[in-house]
Amino acid sequence: MSSLKPIYVLNGPNLNLLGQREPEIYGRTTLADIDKLVSDKAGTLGLAVDCRQSNHEGELVTWIQEAREKASGLVLNAAAYTHTSIAIHDALATLDIPVIEVHISNIFKRESFRHHSTVSPVATGVICGLGVTGYELALDAIHRILTTN
Amino acid sequence: MSSLKPIYVLNGPNLNLLGQREPEIYGRTTLADIDKLVSDKAGTLGLAVDCRQSNHEGELVTWIQEAREKASGLVLNAAAYTHTSIAIHDALATLDIPVIEVHISNIFKRESFRHHSTVSPVATGVICGLGVTGYELALDAIHRILTTN
Amino acid sequence: MSSLKPIYVLNGPNLNLLGQREPEIYGRTTLADIDKLVSDKAGTLGLAVDCRQSNHEGELVTWIQEAREKASGLVLNAAAYTHTSIAIHDALATLDIPVIEVHISNIFKRESFRHHSTVSPVATGVICGLGVTGYELALDAIHRILTTN
Amino acid sequence: MSSLKPIYVLNGPNLNLLGQREPEIYGRTTLADIDKLVSDKAGTLGLAVDCRQSNHEGELVTWIQEAREKASGLVLNAAAYTHTSIAIHDALATLDIPVIEVHISNIFKRESFRHHSTVSPVATGVICGLGVTGYELALDAIHRILTTN
Amino acid sequence: MSSLKPIYVLNGPNLNLLGQREPEIYGRTTLADIDKLVSDKAGTLGLAVDCRQSNHEGELVTWIQEAREKASGLVLNAAAYTHTSIAIHDALATLDIPVIEVHISNIFKRESFRHHSTVSPVATGVICGLGVTGYELALDAIHRILTTN
Amino acid sequence: MSSLKPIYVLNGPNLNLLGQREPEIYGRTTLADIDKLVSDKAGTLGLAVDCRQSNHEGELVTWIQEAREKASGLVLNAAAYTHTSIAIHDALATLDIPVIEVHISNIFKRESFRHHSTVSPVATGVICGLGVTGYELALDAIHRILTTN
Amino acid sequence: MSSLKPIYVLNGPNLNLLGQREPEIYGRTTLADIDKLVSDKAGTLGLAVDCRQSNHEGELVTWIQEAREKASGLVLNAAAYTHTSIAIHDALATLDIPVIEVHISNIFKRESFRHHSTVSPVATGVICGLGVTGYELALDAIHRILTTN
Amino acid sequence: MSSLKPIYVLNGPNLNLLGQREPEIYGRTTLADIDKLVSDKAGTLGLAVDCRQSNHEGELVTWIQEAREKASGLVLNAAAYTHTSIAIHDALATLDIPVIEVHISNIFKRESFRHHSTVSPVATGVICGLGVTGYELALDAIHRILTTN
Amino acid sequence: MSSLKPIYVLNGPNLNLLGQREPEIYGRTTLADIDKLVSDKAGTLGLAVDCRQSNHEGELVTWIQEAREKASGLVLNAAAYTHTSIAIHDALATLDIPVIEVHISNIFKRESFRHHSTVSPVATGVICGLGVTGYELALDAIHRILTTN
Amino acid sequence: MSSLKPIYVLNGPNLNLLGQREPEIYGRTTLADIDKLVSDKAGTLGLAVDCRQSNHEGELVTWIQEAREKASGLVLNAAAYTHTSIAIHDALATLDIPVIEVHISNIFKRESFRHHSTVSPVATGVICGLGVTGYELALDAIHRILTTN
Amino acid sequence: MSSLKPIYVLNGPNLNLLGQREPEIYGRTTLADIDKLVSDKAGTLGLAVDCRQSNHEGELVTWIQEAREKASGLVLNAAAYTHTSIAIHDALATLDIPVIEVHISNIFKRESFRHHSTVSPVATGVICGLGVTGYELALDAIHRILTTN
Amino acid sequence: MSSLKPIYVLNGPNLNLLGQREPEIYGRTTLADIDKLVSDKAGTLGLAVDCRQSNHEGELVTWIQEAREKASGLVLNAAAYTHTSIAIHDALATLDIPVIEVHISNIFKRESFRHHSTVSPVATGVICGLGVTGYELALDAIHRILTTN
Repeated sequence: MSSLKPIYVLNGPNLNLLGQREPEIYGRTTLADIDKLVSDKAGTLGLAVDCRQSNHEGELVTWIQEAREKASGLVLNAAAYTHTSIAIHDALATLDIPVIEVHISNIFKRESFRHHSTVSPVATGVICGLGVTGYELALDAIHRILTTN
Repeated sequence: MSSLKPIYVLNGPNLNLLGQREPEIYGRTTLADIDKLVSDKAGTLGLAVDCRQSNHEGELVTWIQEAREKASGLVLNAAAYTHTSIAIHDALATLDIPVIEVHISNIFKRESFRHHSTVSPVATGVICGLGVTGYELALDAIHRILTTN
Repeated sequence: MSSLKPIYVLNGPNLNLLGQREPEIYGRTTLADIDKLVSDKAGTLGLAVDCRQSNHEGELVTWIQEAREKASGLVLNAAAYTHTSIAIHDALATLDIPVIEVHISNIFKRESFRHHSTVSPVATGVICGLGVTGYELALDAIHRILTTN
Repeated sequence: MSSLKPIYVLNGPNLNLLGQREPEIYGRTTLADIDKLVSDKAGTLGLAVDCRQSNHEGELVTWIQEAREKASGLVLNAAAYTHTSIAIHDALATLDIPVIEVHISNIFKRESFRHHSTVSPVATGVICGLGVTGYELALDAIHRILTTN
Repeated sequence: MSSLKPIYVLNGPNLNLLGQREPEIYGRTTLADIDKLVSDKAGTLGLAVDCRQSNHEGELVTWIQEAREKASGLVLNAAAYTHTSIAIHDALATLDIPVIEVHISNIFKRESFRHHSTVSPVATGVICGLGVTGYELALDAIHRILTTN
Repeated sequence: MSSLKPIYVLNGPNLNLLGQREPEIYGRTTLADIDKLVSDKAGTLGLAVDCRQSNHEGELVTWIQEAREKASGLVLNAAAYTHTSIAIHDALATLDIPVIEVHISNIFKRESFRHHSTVSPVATGVICGLGVTGYELALDAIHRILTTN
Repeated sequence: MSSLKPIYVLNGPNLNLLGQREPEIYGRTTLADIDKLVSDKAGTLGLAVDCRQSNHEGELVTWIQEAREKASGLVLNAAAYTHTSIAIHDALATLDIPVIEVHISNIFKRESFRHHSTVSPVATGVICGLGVTGYELALDAIHRILTTN
Repeated sequence: MSSLKPIYVLNGPNLNLLGQREPEIYGRTTLADIDKLVSDKAGTLGLAVDCRQSNHEGELVTWIQEAREKASGLVLNAAAYTHTSIAIHDALATLDIPVIEVHISNIFKRESFRHHSTVSPVATGVICGLGVTGYELALDAIHRILTTN
Repeated sequence: MSSLKPIYVLNGPNLNLLGQREPEIYGRTTLADIDKLVSDKAGTLGLAVDCRQSNHEGELVTWIQEAREKASGLVLNAAAYTHTSIAIHDALATLDIPVIEVHISNIFKRESFRHHSTVSPVATGVICGLGVTGYELALDAIHRILTTN
Repeated sequence: MSSLKPIYVLNGPNLNLLGQREPEIYGRTTLADIDKLVSDKAGTLGLAVDCRQSNHEGELVTWIQEAREKASGLVLNAAAYTHTSIAIHDALATLDIPVIEVHISNIFKRESFRHHSTVSPVATGVICGLGVTGYELALDAIHRILTTN
Repeated sequence: MSSLKPIYVLNGPNLNLLGQREPEIYGRTTLADIDKLVSDKAGTLGLAVDCRQSNHEGELVTWIQEAREKASGLVLNAAAYTHTSIAIHDALATLDIPVIEVHISNIFKRESFRHHSTVSPVATGVICGLGVTGYELALDAIHRILTTN
Repeated sequence: MSSLKPIYVLNGPNLNLLGQREPEIYGRTTLADIDKLVSDKAGTLGLAVDCRQSNHEGELVTWIQEAREKASGLVLNAAAYTHTSIAIHDALATLDIPVIEVHISNIFKRESFRHHSTVSPVATGVICGLGVTGYELALDAIHRILTTN
């Protein structure tokens, strides 16, 4: 599987503050820690990853579009845009690769405006509330899908 | 009418994928095809056009603001931002030129979150469901308004 | 295309008052003017038209049913019934010909009870807010569909 | 005031059954009794009346349109159509004469679907719950408006 | 029971198209077939029937009113008016005879706007989703009520 | 009827400002003018009146309670409390005398929060939109009820 | 048809009290009477029946699952669970046999929480308001389906 | 970790039909297959599992209560009860062990009544849409939590 | 009063955990303590009690049905089923004995899904927020009703 | 406990009419009877009471504020203000003494606008539907709290 | 500006408890402190103030009416009545002087029933969440308006 | 206070058009005028300011994040993004410095979609409707907070 295109791991707005912002909700791991964790995990599975973060909805849309040709899977934590972005929804709807929606915190324990996701109906699956472990499980799931289908 | 400012033809997020994405909804015409079609049609009517596409809500806002001084009409397919963007609504509310909202597909046949448009109340008129022909009819309408008033 | 069945142009309740009623919303063109305009435009396109108006929901339903066999296209301004009539919706759902929903005013700038249309989900496309020009563009659109397909 | 155009007194669906149907709600007076009562009251005030009843929404719309030129006032009990008819709403919106909405029963004591009226926002005033006396008071009100303005 | 008044079997808008329109929902039986079926079934039960269809809400109201004196039972498929007509609701509320609401398709499997019926609260019973057999069962039910009470 | 208890005419909050406040909605008649008008009208009908105004919900409740024993009828314009007061609703529910709810303006043409009345379901009837004439018609209606029953 | 699997006739919570509980709504027939009635009717049609009642949602789910292999049709009066049980909905969705939902009373004449059924969208048809006759008509309908298809 | 209490793996109503029911949604794996899969996976992680299934809400409540003392973690697919059961919610709220909510299908792609979960706010995390792999990932997640904390 | 049938004291799901679960909401008294308290209180009043608890909605329904013949009063804390169970509502509706709904905590201070009770409209009265004292007061109330009526 | 501050027993609007108004809902006991009953009961418990009634929301607010310093407990039947008064809610939120909300009738059996209470979330507990006995039980509850804490 | 009419500073229900009640929300400043602060600030600006507090909605209405003639500006903290009082809304609508709505706490951080204000649409501006400083800023704003216009 | 970090003054989409766009709502002051005004005011208070404007939601998010380390206070007019942006909400939630939300117009007098703010719950306070003076008052408020705490 070494010749596979990489898995895109895209993080949305404010996730660049991870580890500094509201640690009682998000823990103390930083985004760089996650990138490392994800990269290590991918290595174990024989996968490559491409990790990015943006505060811009439009940039996330562009990266998702890019994933149509350049990625073999997508892990997406769209953060705040999860709850309002139809543009991200539409970009995801054009993909044929496995897409796993990840949330570090359990969004269903938080404010009601975080209970709705525009991403979920166009994702393969959803993992939330499991902290940064969620990213690793997402890679596991994509690996399983890619090697099974 | 040759000395008129151009008509801005602005397309929103994911429309750069036209022809590749969900052809059963949007058909097989690409955005380049539309630009060509629109340009030809404009030529017939003695109008100039300026065609642009962006995945960024903020960039669309900026272009609409620019149209206040530099365009004689506006054709807008705001795509996903149609349903949520108050910023685009506010930018459009500052214009005195004719604005035609266009949608390639019939948004009223699709998911209920596509039935509401923040653009419509600040557009002159709306054309939807007529495929790429909608852009041509929009130019016809603007031409009619510019030559009548 | 001279041997084509005519295009039905059906107008709903109170449109017989056009030009007399609320000219700041609907303009000063009368229904007779529209019939003339539509007829001229159709001539240009090599189409025939059959223009009718009724205040009765049931009569509109009957005419739409009749269009199944006798018309090659339908332009419908259902006026007030647009917002409540499931009977018209059901009649339209039985048609295989192109159906263009037209509104003279931009219904999305008016009272909220005019924002919902039972016609749109069973129309091919919608044109609104462009005054009586909307009828002409509707004929253009039908002509395009009939000559393309 | 003898040369005045008549007051139209229009009654909607099922009011032809008055006196037979649900007398605990509507009393035992028949529609003919009301016509007589209204005619007598009008005589006292020096007014003429033209009383009609229809089960057809479209026919009520047509009569209201006719009132634009032929009546000096309108008393309307639209019965069931009160709660759903935008077509009647639109026809009334074209009138410049006084319009009094009348209901024999107090609609606010009945099922919640009778609490909303599409007529009220385009009527001069509303009288309800006063039985057939409501029609007489409506004539009083119109007489007052016609002689005051 | 030969001297009984007939059972009125009233069908609403677009049911005259049965067998031609959307056969995957309504099957291929025509309205004439239903009239025949209903008539035969009635014969078996010693009942007479009077079958009518109208696209006009007002005409259905008038027929229901007529049934007050001329019918011993009523089978009503109000089709699209089922979901919006308060006028039909009010006409039915004046009846003392058994009223069976019939729908050929299972309206609860269809669009949500078909899930509400203004007829049901003033009907004796409801039969839906059983195709044209529903009409026969409705006659059975009325026969049972007339012979039991 | 000279020995009858008086009719209470109760006006709610801000009606003491009538004639000064928003004359485009309420006209230029003052509350004193209304009291005079009502008193004259009552004289004509052989009735006595007791006119009061309060800005206090609790005082209106107390006066309505008092009317149980001391009045033969009640005309109530509860103004702003119309839309929210359950206490006034409950006080009215204890009365056996005729109660007419009056509004000077047509509340159904105004903000949506004025469309709901807690008074209507416990009033005999409602008169609105007829200016100060409404008070006179209310006396007429009460007179009719008192002399008929 | 003698070798057919039986028709399951399943009754939900509180139906064991039939005849004792609220006879003004449900009549005086007991559940044993219904079983007898149903059994007799089935005999006439050459069908066998298996009648059961449970107050447990889970038990009804289990019986419906059992019907997948052991029954040729299902008559279900889920009573209170009709309005809330997704588990019963899901069990029914797995069946390929005809399912008729029956209610003794007309649930649309009762409290609004009884107007919604989770059963209807996964039933073949619905019969309600016809008393215990509804069970017999349900057998008729199933018999018709089994012998037609 | 061999002396740990087992992980409870609880499955709700209709999951005993897995592999037979709607395979296009749930796949062809049976519940026995899942138990095997889960057991194998647990073995790999040095965990023990206790797999159970019930159609009874009350039984699931009882098992969850039992898990308070006898389990070191809980994997719960409450199926249909996910969307309505407050009893299960309350039982879960009493636990101090990690709880992972699993759904085989992506419930956010299905009917809107499946989008709300009463389980999520009292679960540690949620995994859905990843087929039976979800159970394995849930064990991974619990293992991680148990060995980290 | 010694020959009276007992008072049934029924407790719903998770109440068997009282004293162990969320003591900050429910306190530290166990269900056995409550049974003792209730029994003692009943003794003081000359009443007998029969205390039961179940996690099964169906079992609670069955016990309530049983109370129709075997109990002289009912104290019901339906816990989680309070908010969703129509089956319990229907069982209670068949009773002629006094029914007191009890909640240990003040449900109106908790999550909004606990603010609605299907039990209340079919209970004689409601006592909540008074801890286990609520059960004693409920017995007092029933005693008062039984000795007064 | 003889030196305790008194328990305030506050009654809201229209409760001064008790025994005269709608006895089928509220019974025939007058407010004076209740004061006597409450006073007697208090005597038994060694408590003093201070009973007051007002139709004014503002006066109830003032008395509740006064209770902060002068009362050891509060029994409140806010009647109509129960459902709308945030001012009473806010006054209650400032108290540290036990507050029992009492309603004579079962408000959950009445109009839906009586089902919501602004008082409940800031009361210690709620007792409703038990007639005037509710006041006595409220004293019992307060006595228990004062002697236990 | 010394001859100006004073600025009315009106405080609504429970604000007389400031400094005593819920200091974590409202701080420890008393109403007397605020009056002093406001008076000092006004002195600095060359303005006079008239500070009042009432628990009665009706009294606040009367004071606002009085301000029409006697005040040159109005600072209003309507407290609980902010969220429900249409009477205060109507009184404010009659004013031509600047009106600043003040809230000590940030009402948008509190319960959702505090997020709506009937005052805001008829105020010049709103200041909230800035503690007692808000009153001073309100005087600044009024001073600026009075000296600018 | 001269060594303080500056106050960030951030303006959202379309505010670059101030003074040109809809002057009847926003007045004729330009954004440059505001920057000047704000800068002067800051000078008076011994504060520094950093004024920026963007049409991009993502850029505003980034600037707010930057303010965490580089600013001592934040004045934010998020314009259209006020009503929809959860990303800005989340960025603000990470700040420990005072945040004042400012709106030039009174948003509560405008369209209902402008009545909700995602900013308010994470702002210290809100000032709206006071024109450009609002920015100056916001600086006053921040100055007060910085010098008091």
